[in-house]
Amino acid sequence: MAKEKNTEKQQELSITVAREEDLSEWYTQVIVKSDLIDYSKVSGCIVYKPRSYQIWEIIQRETDKRFKEAGIQNAYFPLFIPESLLMKEAEHLEGFAPEVAWVTQTGDSELGEKLAIRPTSETIMYDSYSKWVQSWRDLPLRLNQWNNVVRWEFKHSTPFLRSREFLWNEGHTVFATKEEAVAEEKVIIGIYKEILEKYMALYGVVGRKSKNETFPGAEWTHSIECFLPTGKAIQGPDFHHDGQIFSKAFNISFLDEKGERQFAWQNTFAITTRMIGVLIMTHSDDKGLVLPPRLTYNKCVIVPLLFKGKEEAVLEQARKLKERLSSFGAVLDERVGVSPGFKFSEWEIKGMPLRLELGPRDLEQGQIVVVKRHSGEKILVPLSDAEKEVERILNKIQDEMFEKSKAYTLSNRVVCESVGDFEKALAEKKWPVVRWCGDPQCEESLKDLYGVKSNNIPLEQDKVAKGKCVFCSRDASCYAHLCKSL
Amino acid sequence: MAKEKNTEKQQELSITVAREEDLSEWYTQVIVKSDLIDYSKVSGCIVYKPRSYQIWEIIQRETDKRFKEAGIQNAYFPLFIPESLLMKEAEHLEGFAPEVAWVTQTGDSELGEKLAIRPTSETIMYDSYSKWVQSWRDLPLRLNQWNNVVRWEFKHSTPFLRSREFLWNEGHTVFATKEEAVAEEKVIIGIYKEILEKYMALYGVVGRKSKNETFPGAEWTHSIECFLPTGKAIQGPDFHHDGQIFSKAFNISFLDEKGERQFAWQNTFAITTRMIGVLIMTHSDDKGLVLPPRLTYNKCVIVPLLFKGKEEAVLEQARKLKERLSSFGAVLDERVGVSPGFKFSEWEIKGMPLRLELGPRDLEQGQIVVVKRHSGEKILVPLSDAEKEVERILNKIQDEMFEKSKAYTLSNRVVCESVGDFEKALAEKKWPVVRWCGDPQCEESLKDLYGVKSNNIPLEQDKVAKGKCVFCSRDASCYAHLCKSL
Repeated sequence: MAKEKNTEKQQELSITVAREEDLSEWYTQVIVKSDLIDYSKVSGCIVYKPRSYQIWEIIQRETDKRFKEAGIQNAYFPLFIPESLLMKEAEHLEGFAPEVAWVTQTGDSELGEKLAIRPTSETIMYDSYSKWVQSWRDLPLRLNQWNNVVRWEFKHSTPFLRSREFLWNEGHTVFATKEEAVAEEKVIIGIYKEILEKYMALYGVVGRKSKNETFPGAEWTHSIECFLPTGKAIQGPDFHHDGQIFSKAFNISFLDEKGERQFAWQNTFAITTRMIGVLIMTHSDDKGLVLPPRLTYNKCVIVPLLFKGKEEAVLEQARKLKERLSSFGAVLDERVGVSPGFKFSEWEIKGMPLRLELGPRDLEQGQIVVVKRHSGEKILVPLSDAEKEVERILNKIQDEMFEKSKAYTLSNRVVCESVGDFEKALAEKKWPVVRWCGDPQCEESLKDLYGVKSNNIPLEQDKVAKGKCVFCSRDASCYAHLCKSL
Repeated sequence: MAKEKNTEKQQELSITVAREEDLSEWYTQVIVKSDLIDYSKVSGCIVYKPRSYQIWEIIQRETDKRFKEAGIQNAYFPLFIPESLLMKEAEHLEGFAPEVAWVTQTGDSELGEKLAIRPTSETIMYDSYSKWVQSWRDLPLRLNQWNNVVRWEFKHSTPFLRSREFLWNEGHTVFATKEEAVAEEKVIIGIYKEILEKYMALYGVVGRKSKNETFPGAEWTHSIECFLPTGKAIQGPDFHHDGQIFSKAFNISFLDEKGERQFAWQNTFAITTRMIGVLIMTHSDDKGLVLPPRLTYNKCVIVPLLFKGKEEAVLEQARKLKERLSSFGAVLDERVGVSPGFKFSEWEIKGMPLRLELGPRDLEQGQIVVVKRHSGEKILVPLSDAEKEVERILNKIQDEMFEKSKAYTLSNRVVCESVGDFEKALAEKKWPVVRWCGDPQCEESLKDLYGVKSNNIPLEQDKVAKGKCVFCSRDASCYAHLCKSL
């Protein structure tokens, strides 16, 4: 068997640029070298390799379980939306039309009416809803889809963060009253927040979107915004209360208990594969990918340290250990002709949460050396307690990663009472929370002046916004997150 | 509250045509009135309502679990395939090009190269595989996708059975040797067979496809064929051994352990939402949908029989019963102003596997009346044993439905040693198993003469095919299933 040229290969495999130095190149190297994705022949569309698809699979599984418990059912609507249907709600159309991919031919024939690949499914779903909803007995109607959508953005695409095709859930619910519709926000945002915190180890701030940033066709949008270690914020999962905008455009109406016709109240909500990008940006480092244990099937790798004459005894224990840790998807790296050091860095690049080292001396002392990927911390664990200790340490990692994200976000939030405060915070790549009017014109001018937009207006306001907007002469109505966004 | 006009509504809800009388109208009524699907504004594309999507969810969950146990990993490749890539394997292209939906525009712009919506993903996946597979160490590579595909057929579309967009798994595996590749067939067909038998209660025959019916680009195809109570057969899940056809077209090659370059060996395999149509065609009846218990989250409905003055006692027990049977997703039909008879037939139409009736007299006698949907059989069950008995009866239903499908199929198979036998079997809507040559020309002429094609050539041949083909002068090579297919 040919021996690997370790040094050369290590160079090829490792991350050769620091995150601080060149964020974009660092990100590309992390996602490619950790084996998460590959580029495809279709510009702006990536291949989700098993190691990234499993992240999505876990997010999907956990979210779906909670949706079902909350009484939401899954359905599946066609990929295609006829042009005439997409045009039914003007504001919605305006928001999506520039990015629609159109099917105009099938086989050799031209289609009579061109078909949009769904950029989102309001129009095709609500056409059905208008038939299904006739009586108050048909409500609430709470459906969800897990599917693929296409938005042909012309901006530079970034895998996960801005891809022309992405995967998501789209929940579309209908209620008889505004009160019931609005009450759903707590449930859904609660589910998304739990997924971010417990699984993705991400801290985010729940808030309301400004008028300018509200979803096209919604009355208001709530989002969870995450602050990245790049000084930019990014929008996570969101929830839109559509009021009666779509129900009037699509005639989703019902006879109430008194026999009177009413328009229904609607919500939509989504979490997308974009979150995988947020995860990488937040937690990965100059050594490569860092994954929270709950987002991977293989949570630890065992690297046996093989010394001449003692290989068999170590390998035997390592194999036993793998069996004992099978519920954590333990991997045993038995490769011959590859040095332990090379293995260590390969698994670090790939984001394996925990490394277990086992050598002849460890064997003598009945211990294993356990190394946490996210912090590098080494822990000596009695070999006999491996199952219990690995479980404990994995849970600890999960907590530590979330706490790190939370502490980072909170320590970078800066309340700004003046333009000076705001400009200073921006320059220091902090997250300004600014006394603001929320006016669309004011937001436009901020975009022109600073290249920033509002991220969201936190539901929990630390203090009451008295006096004038920091930027203009209007009265302040809130403190808002305002910074560059990804 | 307005009283329902029961008779009128019942008429509107119930299946008004017998299956024997008008199969196509019966099928349409069953799938629409049982609330499985709705038609959409896109011709040939349906809406999977929650009651049909959950069938697919269960098939997917169970298949996926087994794929993972077998070492197959999930991935996700782009929806789009550039025209030049689709054209890379000639036979494959020829098979799919006439049915491809093409994206030619995005926003207001024309695309430089048009993009196919995947009809299947060989070409986009193997373009990646050719980069990923370099050394024998990279093999085997065994990936699967759960996704949507589009085949714009111009034939009359039938929901589930022939839809322009459908959902499926597509497994695409690569091996270093032919032996390993071929050995995968047993595993995959074994998984599919288990899903059909244990979950869908469908009996199918495993066999090899004729040359004419082999997948475009495959060396050979194995399929599970199901015989429908309409005298037609339909193809279920399939497995294709591609040999080195694609690996040569896409240059999927590797250095073996001796350092020599070799082309890889490949397989693909799939199960699709088409199976939901097979399920309905096989098991449903003139009263509506019949579902095997393992394919639905809600396995039983409790219908309380309410008599004046005794409502509360019955309802109280019914509610308790619902709680006790929550692991079976028990539904309690408490609707007021709707007669028990109306409720019975509504749940029959919807295919609820088990109905539990509970009235004042049952309460006195400490029993419930349990009615099996698929057979109409009534069973008296002690109220105190409800959990245990419901579980036992549900398992029994599952078995009985499979046995029914199996018995039906086997009793309709007719071995034909002459054209006369064959014509008689066709006329009697049986499933001919014919001594055959397997020659493509012979198959062409059978299509012209009888409108039949070969379904498959069973792997287990009941006897050795000696002598001449029943239809032509060539030597017989097998006994093959030959009949009209859906």
